[in-house]
Amino acid sequence: MPLGPVFACEECFGPLEIAYDFSGYDTEKLRARIEAGPANIWRYAPLLPVPADVADKPNINPGWTKLVKADRLAAELGVTGGLYVKDDSGNPTHSFKDRVVAQALEAARAFGFTTLSCSSTGNLAGAVGAAAARAGLRSCVFIPHDLEQGKVVMAAVYGGELVGIEGNYDDVNRFCSELIGDPAGEGWGFVNVNLRPYYAEGSKTLAYEICEQLGWRLPDQLVVPIASGSQLTKIDKGLRELIELGLVEDRPYKIFGAQAEGCSPVSTAFKAGHDVVRPQKPDTIAKSLAIGNPADGPYVLDIARRTGGAVEDVDDERIVAAIKLLARTEGIFAETAGGVTVGVTKKLIEAGVLDPALTTVVLNTGDGLKTLDAVAGTGLTATIRPNLDSFREAGLA
Amino acid sequence: MPLGPVFACEECFGPLEIAYDFSGYDTEKLRARIEAGPANIWRYAPLLPVPADVADKPNINPGWTKLVKADRLAAELGVTGGLYVKDDSGNPTHSFKDRVVAQALEAARAFGFTTLSCSSTGNLAGAVGAAAARAGLRSCVFIPHDLEQGKVVMAAVYGGELVGIEGNYDDVNRFCSELIGDPAGEGWGFVNVNLRPYYAEGSKTLAYEICEQLGWRLPDQLVVPIASGSQLTKIDKGLRELIELGLVEDRPYKIFGAQAEGCSPVSTAFKAGHDVVRPQKPDTIAKSLAIGNPADGPYVLDIARRTGGAVEDVDDERIVAAIKLLARTEGIFAETAGGVTVGVTKKLIEAGVLDPALTTVVLNTGDGLKTLDAVAGTGLTATIRPNLDSFREAGLA
Repeated sequence: MPLGPVFACEECFGPLEIAYDFSGYDTEKLRARIEAGPANIWRYAPLLPVPADVADKPNINPGWTKLVKADRLAAELGVTGGLYVKDDSGNPTHSFKDRVVAQALEAARAFGFTTLSCSSTGNLAGAVGAAAARAGLRSCVFIPHDLEQGKVVMAAVYGGELVGIEGNYDDVNRFCSELIGDPAGEGWGFVNVNLRPYYAEGSKTLAYEICEQLGWRLPDQLVVPIASGSQLTKIDKGLRELIELGLVEDRPYKIFGAQAEGCSPVSTAFKAGHDVVRPQKPDTIAKSLAIGNPADGPYVLDIARRTGGAVEDVDDERIVAAIKLLARTEGIFAETAGGVTVGVTKKLIEAGVLDPALTTVVLNTGDGLKTLDAVAGTGLTATIRPNLDSFREAGLA
Repeated sequence: MPLGPVFACEECFGPLEIAYDFSGYDTEKLRARIEAGPANIWRYAPLLPVPADVADKPNINPGWTKLVKADRLAAELGVTGGLYVKDDSGNPTHSFKDRVVAQALEAARAFGFTTLSCSSTGNLAGAVGAAAARAGLRSCVFIPHDLEQGKVVMAAVYGGELVGIEGNYDDVNRFCSELIGDPAGEGWGFVNVNLRPYYAEGSKTLAYEICEQLGWRLPDQLVVPIASGSQLTKIDKGLRELIELGLVEDRPYKIFGAQAEGCSPVSTAFKAGHDVVRPQKPDTIAKSLAIGNPADGPYVLDIARRTGGAVEDVDDERIVAAIKLLARTEGIFAETAGGVTVGVTKKLIEAGVLDPALTTVVLNTGDGLKTLDAVAGTGLTATIRPNLDSFREAGLA
């Protein structure tokens, strides 16, 4: 089937995925080409559904974010095999969404779409607004009309259309599906609906970067957040591609999925030994992961079981504690989703599920500046008068 | 005079600056070494006051931020010679302060200091907190006790001491000077006071990166924000070093300084033809530039005049308009300081002072997420009911 703006099989209605033919590649030539490429995701252009000249087009060029060797966090958690944080808050709009939107943008351009669109309550809105602005495409982002003012500003500043829908997030999504099926939606690329197969491929770049930054080596263990589950499945796909291409040694790795207790349908299914995921009504501070009916949940269960990993969840209190732990030990201020992965890592080590003697990579997919409310209780450690006596009295010397 | 934690001449009380002996360098070997270095400021370690193994020590490793070719902004401003935005919001704590704090941290380590400190009302507090956390140093940041809660959270999350001083920012600074002179301050490194000569050198890396990212070429024109003026003087120093080292061709460049109208002591002096800068009481939304008595003001005047540049200011309305212009054309959400540089660039082009036919680099030194209030008026472009009729009525099709 040729590439096109299609996202579901016409016969079984299942989601479509992009396939590659890697048979013609020379491993060392490919490695050299990647290493000589730009310091962004386009260094991996040969492994992505993008044109060869992609790096020359106006795009926000996300990726090649820091893989931080987290020695102080490792010491606190008792990890001896090497602990790393893949910190995607370094992306242009400070979340991993820039990776996936950058792919969708190139697909939109290839298909001649004129409007880049999505429904969102957060990170995705900013990523779409910024990417469309850079490319000179119109953008139109749909959000619930009563979203908090701070989030509205972060999405509105890029100057595209920002449409409030009178209803909740489910109403917004239903409306978007209706629009895609209507002539009014012609020329519209919804990054995570009709462009989803391209969009989703962007998450593979997390796997590529982690391995290249480790010196073309697979980590033993990865801890990945689960919202729809797409990111985790694509990271697995990326790792398998690197093995197939001979860019890394073929040896076992384990993928661990992380959810918030208040939205833990995949974790619940994993622990119960189920193959299907029962939807939940989300109630957690980790809003960027709050998808109660994750489309890729069953695939996540497969991957966790096949690789010998697990899926675990942590409550809001542990999420906040983990945000502070990461900030205090490594100077990384993570979004609530980063609190979930660090919190789950800690919990899995304590439970003896994650092996502290193995190389472990934990993902932070967003920026704490976007979820300040989660740590709003943090404040001054002392208040003094502007003189040395007051300073000494406070025990600060 | 040997390197040490001294910041003022014992005879004239003037500020001290770090000098280098570049006479032994082979240009092409140095270039190759830089290009093979890490994707952060430590690629320039030979040109900085840091140990040779600096990249192996725990530091937040800022720098190597994007130099964005801003073609859509250029079209709006009528720039034909190539317009670039050096986007320092990509640093670990999302401002250029990470560059200077990273230097101060290495100096603190070298001098055996155990506490990293500063006074701040914003970006610097986060940069110090994060850098100290990564390095495992104690941090103690002093702020006015009545700072807005959001800014307190951004500084407090890294877990160091965060001390509120009962008084205004001037009281905070006076207290810090007192502490440095007292035995109670022994072992304390104030990044921008007793470590200032090291701290300030970090700004040179902006010049290095811009030239390397342009293909080892000097830009014709640079637009740089002015707070204390230190950043601008160090960018000039960095450019001159690259010429001296033979890494770029020796040809003229012009440096333009940018201030907010509500805190424009240097711009006022420049326009009046004065050599001295008369202090002002700041009143502007560009809080990160609101230094009414800029220590390096006279040096900035010298550089603007020597290079054929200028110093200009823009009012708050133009700052906000420029933030939106940059976001709408390039997908970059800048702090108010970025609104100042983009706004001044526009004003200088309109006035015929900046030549649109020349290659121009504009600095964005911070992140819009930290000054959301400036664009708080931005909002929904439409509100509709969740159906296609309502969508069509709103004229969105």
